[in-house]
Amino acid sequence: MSDKTSVFLDDLAIGQEYQSQQYQLDKEQIISFAKQFDPQPFHTDEAAAEHSFFQGLAASGWHTAAITMKLLVGSLPIGNGLIGAGVDVQWPRPTRPNDTLRVVSKIIEITPSRSKPDRGIVTVECRTLNQNDDVCQKMLTKIVVMRRP
Amino acid sequence: MSDKTSVFLDDLAIGQEYQSQQYQLDKEQIISFAKQFDPQPFHTDEAAAEHSFFQGLAASGWHTAAITMKLLVGSLPIGNGLIGAGVDVQWPRPTRPNDTLRVVSKIIEITPSRSKPDRGIVTVECRTLNQNDDVCQKMLTKIVVMRRP
Repeated sequence: MSDKTSVFLDDLAIGQEYQSQQYQLDKEQIISFAKQFDPQPFHTDEAAAEHSFFQGLAASGWHTAAITMKLLVGSLPIGNGLIGAGVDVQWPRPTRPNDTLRVVSKIIEITPSRSKPDRGIVTVECRTLNQNDDVCQKMLTKIVVMRRP
Repeated sequence: MSDKTSVFLDDLAIGQEYQSQQYQLDKEQIISFAKQFDPQPFHTDEAAAEHSFFQGLAASGWHTAAITMKLLVGSLPIGNGLIGAGVDVQWPRPTRPNDTLRVVSKIIEITPSRSKPDRGIVTVECRTLNQNDDVCQKMLTKIVVMRRP
């Protein structure tokens, strides 16, 4: 995965931002994902969803998270790949059919490893936005980033 | 979703545990999910994965999380459904092809809402275990639980 656009630990600085491509969601994708992994009526059944907590069909939060990962793979050019040690995820508002999603990532902490000098842990804040710039998901993730080989 | 086995806020007590069914994973599922949502060689290409950080094909953490959600929907009988306000997820070890996964959930905190007396926030610790009882994912999730209607 290492090419001229790849970045490694020493290339990163606090405050750097990365913008992803856009991702077009639709009702069929929402229902298909939910039937596989989150089979609850407010994610799988448009009519039932109207009278639910979400007041309309909403994507599973895990679907939003998975789409976010896809957008991160295309936009955060870490040379050793994106290897998450842990994440903190919040869904301040539902993701809806026909939303167009994108992710803005910001480097917020860089901690070189004491025990393993070839790497560090980088904390990235990733906001998943819809077409109105509403935040549908806010994630803090700690990723393992190697020094340039 | 309300039936005789459903539980609501007043039915829950700290320390209660719930056991899920098992879920059989395989290589094809790992590669298919990763191609859609986490297209990195250590998740999509068995040969490339051998020489990666994971030293062999590993499921995307988001795949493990999605399977965990499926198992939770079948095992945590909250009357108003499973509605997550936020999660903290760690992946202490990779999930591998042919792993058999299950989830053990434990109620660890119950906080009635001050502003909305019909509900509360319940913190659940969910451990996703493989067939050797190794923890592949550890999740703390805060879910919205209504009082019995």
